[in-house]
Amino acid sequence: MKLHQVKSPKDIKKEMSKYFKNIKIEKEIVNIESALNRYLYSNIKGKVDIPDFDKSTVDGYAVKASDVYGASESIPAFLTYIGEVEMGEDTEILLDYDQCVYVPTGGKLPKGCNAMVMIEHTEKIDEETIAVYKPLGEGENIIKIGEDMKKDEILLEKGRKVKSYDLGVLSSQGIWEIEVFKKPVVSIISTGDELVPPYEDIKEGQIRDINTYTILGAVEEFGGEVINTSIVKDNYENLKEAVEKYGEISDVVIISGGSSVGAKDNTAKVLDSLGQPGVFVEGAAIKPGKPTIISYSKQTAFIGLPGHPLSSAIVFSVFGKELFSILLNKIKTKEVIVESYCQQNIHSTPGRETYQAVSIEERHGKSYFRPILGKSASISTIVKADGILKIEIEEEGISKGDKRKIILI
Amino acid sequence: MKLHQVKSPKDIKKEMSKYFKNIKIEKEIVNIESALNRYLYSNIKGKVDIPDFDKSTVDGYAVKASDVYGASESIPAFLTYIGEVEMGEDTEILLDYDQCVYVPTGGKLPKGCNAMVMIEHTEKIDEETIAVYKPLGEGENIIKIGEDMKKDEILLEKGRKVKSYDLGVLSSQGIWEIEVFKKPVVSIISTGDELVPPYEDIKEGQIRDINTYTILGAVEEFGGEVINTSIVKDNYENLKEAVEKYGEISDVVIISGGSSVGAKDNTAKVLDSLGQPGVFVEGAAIKPGKPTIISYSKQTAFIGLPGHPLSSAIVFSVFGKELFSILLNKIKTKEVIVESYCQQNIHSTPGRETYQAVSIEERHGKSYFRPILGKSASISTIVKADGILKIEIEEEGISKGDKRKIILI
Repeated sequence: MKLHQVKSPKDIKKEMSKYFKNIKIEKEIVNIESALNRYLYSNIKGKVDIPDFDKSTVDGYAVKASDVYGASESIPAFLTYIGEVEMGEDTEILLDYDQCVYVPTGGKLPKGCNAMVMIEHTEKIDEETIAVYKPLGEGENIIKIGEDMKKDEILLEKGRKVKSYDLGVLSSQGIWEIEVFKKPVVSIISTGDELVPPYEDIKEGQIRDINTYTILGAVEEFGGEVINTSIVKDNYENLKEAVEKYGEISDVVIISGGSSVGAKDNTAKVLDSLGQPGVFVEGAAIKPGKPTIISYSKQTAFIGLPGHPLSSAIVFSVFGKELFSILLNKIKTKEVIVESYCQQNIHSTPGRETYQAVSIEERHGKSYFRPILGKSASISTIVKADGILKIEIEEEGISKGDKRKIILI
Repeated sequence: MKLHQVKSPKDIKKEMSKYFKNIKIEKEIVNIESALNRYLYSNIKGKVDIPDFDKSTVDGYAVKASDVYGASESIPAFLTYIGEVEMGEDTEILLDYDQCVYVPTGGKLPKGCNAMVMIEHTEKIDEETIAVYKPLGEGENIIKIGEDMKKDEILLEKGRKVKSYDLGVLSSQGIWEIEVFKKPVVSIISTGDELVPPYEDIKEGQIRDINTYTILGAVEEFGGEVINTSIVKDNYENLKEAVEKYGEISDVVIISGGSSVGAKDNTAKVLDSLGQPGVFVEGAAIKPGKPTIISYSKQTAFIGLPGHPLSSAIVFSVFGKELFSILLNKIKTKEVIVESYCQQNIHSTPGRETYQAVSIEERHGKSYFRPILGKSASISTIVKADGILKIEIEEEGISKGDKRKIILI
């Protein structure tokens, strides 16, 4: 039997990375209409320059800038009109000195020009002559080949969560199909003799299985896919059978409820029986959530969560989130936070990273937060919350008036 | 022909609400495993009290608080042990004076008790006698019927986007199926003779259809479902045919590219031909995105967006978002914002609400933003952005050092 000591969240995350990096999540090909919120399996490089031709950004005439040098309202430059470019069409026109060609916005520039004069600054004198009333710099009102995106440049990085704007970048490149990580496959086991799923009748003294569904939702948010949920009696044999069965078909197995006194030993023993290295976290310096268990065997990650619904939800929002970041190679993104002032002293336990549900209120353009106090068994607490306040491991609490960053939920 | 003037975003949103409130989005029933991120069609009320029985929050003995009044390490109270409650089981035991009953955490309390003493503060003297070394207040270490959730209380409001924690609340109530709004059905039309979809070969001078895919992604984020995308030639007949066809089968039709000079008149004319009230916005005081068109006919919302990809994406992030808030009766939620300091002067046009893509950087715990400058045709601009800065309609720009709220993307 291994001896474990309570570890800090920072150390736990380091060890998670060491072990869980070995879990291989395969790729799959999706078209861009189904790619939103998936994670890129490889860098997306430019296939072509965008634009892939020199292009006008205005309606007007393509010219040589030197031909209109010094042009003004009183002394216009006169150019010979030699034709027009049609939108969406190629052009063979070659522009010579003192000539001009009509080009619409987005149209391809004829060879030989280096600027576009806006139609508002010109006048048609006759069928062959255009007067230009304004001088132009070279490159004015045109967008050059590759100015927006360059061939072979990395446009979107591996591990990026695909956003709606990214779909536009992919489409602009003529990229219809992309490689994304498959969704890691997850099984959820709730342990407890007294648990009843929401679709069954309940007897006096029994309670509903809550954790399965908060975890299921979080897994979906983190980019995984739940393939199985089950309620298992709280004894070694039943738990071992379930964990072995689901471990074989899953990348991740989440066990909730078996990590408090007594049941906790079962979960750790069962996980250690599955193969090396087994349990590497048994106790986290986090509040709520001290009895957290984390284990790795045979290409599968196991997380044992506390049974109390709020504790289990908060622990999973910390370590479950980290797990999926590792599996999907997620790029670190800006956290969704708001700066807010504390309205009421909040206690915490030094030596434990503390997570506190808070409500946020805006007054006179300033943001204020207040802890939502509830027993850890109460999941309704967090439903009323706007965000979660993290109190660092070395802090002794937060005083009224302190300014903090709140993670919105 | 109606005459329209450019309207402020505030007035536009008011008019959108007036007309689009009439579009009826039906309900559908989903089970809670498929409910994440859907919008509630009706208030969810408590079916039962939670807990639905008085419950212990510790492992220990159920007592009458008055029986242990004054108990201490030196003078314990002695109680008669009369039995135990099993986890998940009902109990018929009735507690009398000077008696106690063992109850595990989460177990049902026997009748007659009003507090739980933790096992750590007791000692088993013999098979029938327990010594209690600490006094207790009434209600200590117990959670009463309905203390977490009450029967008939509104737990989750109509229009709420279902979060992972909400699934726990639903499950705790034994609610397996809920009513959600169907996803509003959307068709997207891109107009332009030069447009090619990402899965087809492209010829010199043609460009890729970008807007269809940025809008498709945004529709999905806002809670809608795209059932059709098509590219239509930029003339009255073709556009009218497409808009009529898709208008009949959709709650929302988005037209992009037909709202700049020339083409703009086509889009407005076509939309006005579909029936009263027709076009009510033709020009928005917003930058980018002035040539926005919004129309309502026959239970369908129509939005005409500019052709430039960045403009079209930004306009849709403002008015498209508002549209889906109206259709799905969304509850206003805290915006996802970060407070940040401006690093570089940014100009804006007073009289137009300006949206500027920005990058954000953290230094010494403070956040700084900088505009990402790019031509409005460049969709790659916004991919590099961390957020969008909104400059109010009356402002003349933002100066270096100013503090602003950035909407993260």
